[in-house]
Amino acid sequence: MNLTSIGIIHSPHKQATGTPVQSSLASGIEGTVEVFPEYAAGLRDLEGFDRIWLLYWFDRAKPAELVLTPYLDKTPRGLFARRSPCRPNPIGLSSVRLLGISANVLRVDGLDILDNTPLLDMKPYIPAFDAFKAKRSGWCGNAKDGSVAADGRFAVGESGYLNT
Amino acid sequence: MNLTSIGIIHSPHKQATGTPVQSSLASGIEGTVEVFPEYAAGLRDLEGFDRIWLLYWFDRAKPAELVLTPYLDKTPRGLFARRSPCRPNPIGLSSVRLLGISANVLRVDGLDILDNTPLLDMKPYIPAFDAFKAKRSGWCGNAKDGSVAADGRFAVGESGYLNT
Repeated sequence: MNLTSIGIIHSPHKQATGTPVQSSLASGIEGTVEVFPEYAAGLRDLEGFDRIWLLYWFDRAKPAELVLTPYLDKTPRGLFARRSPCRPNPIGLSSVRLLGISANVLRVDGLDILDNTPLLDMKPYIPAFDAFKAKRSGWCGNAKDGSVAADGRFAVGESGYLNT
Repeated sequence: MNLTSIGIIHSPHKQATGTPVQSSLASGIEGTVEVFPEYAAGLRDLEGFDRIWLLYWFDRAKPAELVLTPYLDKTPRGLFARRSPCRPNPIGLSSVRLLGISANVLRVDGLDILDNTPLLDMKPYIPAFDAFKAKRSGWCGNAKDGSVAADGRFAVGESGYLNT
């Protein structure tokens, strides 16, 4: 199972420090997704979607640790109960707002991804398939709708390559 | 960028025909996710979540085609505007309900995935990070909340290995 980079994500985040750990906490942070020209034909119809999923490779993540105390948490948590970038297969997942497409370049908002991160895939975000309520969000919080508090970002961050 | 299978998804779907094309259309279809024992320690704390993301490898998908008329649609659509399994990097993404965990085996509901599919990753589903409304869902439909009609499944299916 080998992956090929299909593009590059360009963001203002040059280093992990200061990078938001989730797209939903990165509103207003814009950047571009450069899709390599040989894949540009596949962008047809994408502009009609408000949001898209970006799947990308955490190319600067540390090796996975199965149990680790998240950043600013005090209790060791299992890897699969976290959104850490340090995983056996370091695949990142972010839902970003699509602002526009010009040729093979997408402008997006909500970037929690480091600059020059390899792009693996894009999928349209479709609420009927992707948006769910949850009664329980485990150790991340007990909000009725499954939301986490604003400071939850420290505990469950995916991107920014923090070792959460 | 090489991937390693971290487990196997066991589902009742032995072939693409009849397999739901999205998890949200597969309610009541249960199966198990077998995580290889060497990764089982990473499952700690996961049971507190209602839902989890499964990332997996579409091991029986056809090669990608950048523009293709989706199953039961009449207009050619770009690959990245579809949830087709036939992609340059054939990574599948499904949000399933977590019913329980016993040792290294998870019971899940909402399986739109073929039996014996290689598991790549699991992440907790966190509504604050993953659940969004969308005003526009492109060619998939114009419902106010971005939902697609029930028959939208034929147009935007991800799994089931149909060449959507």
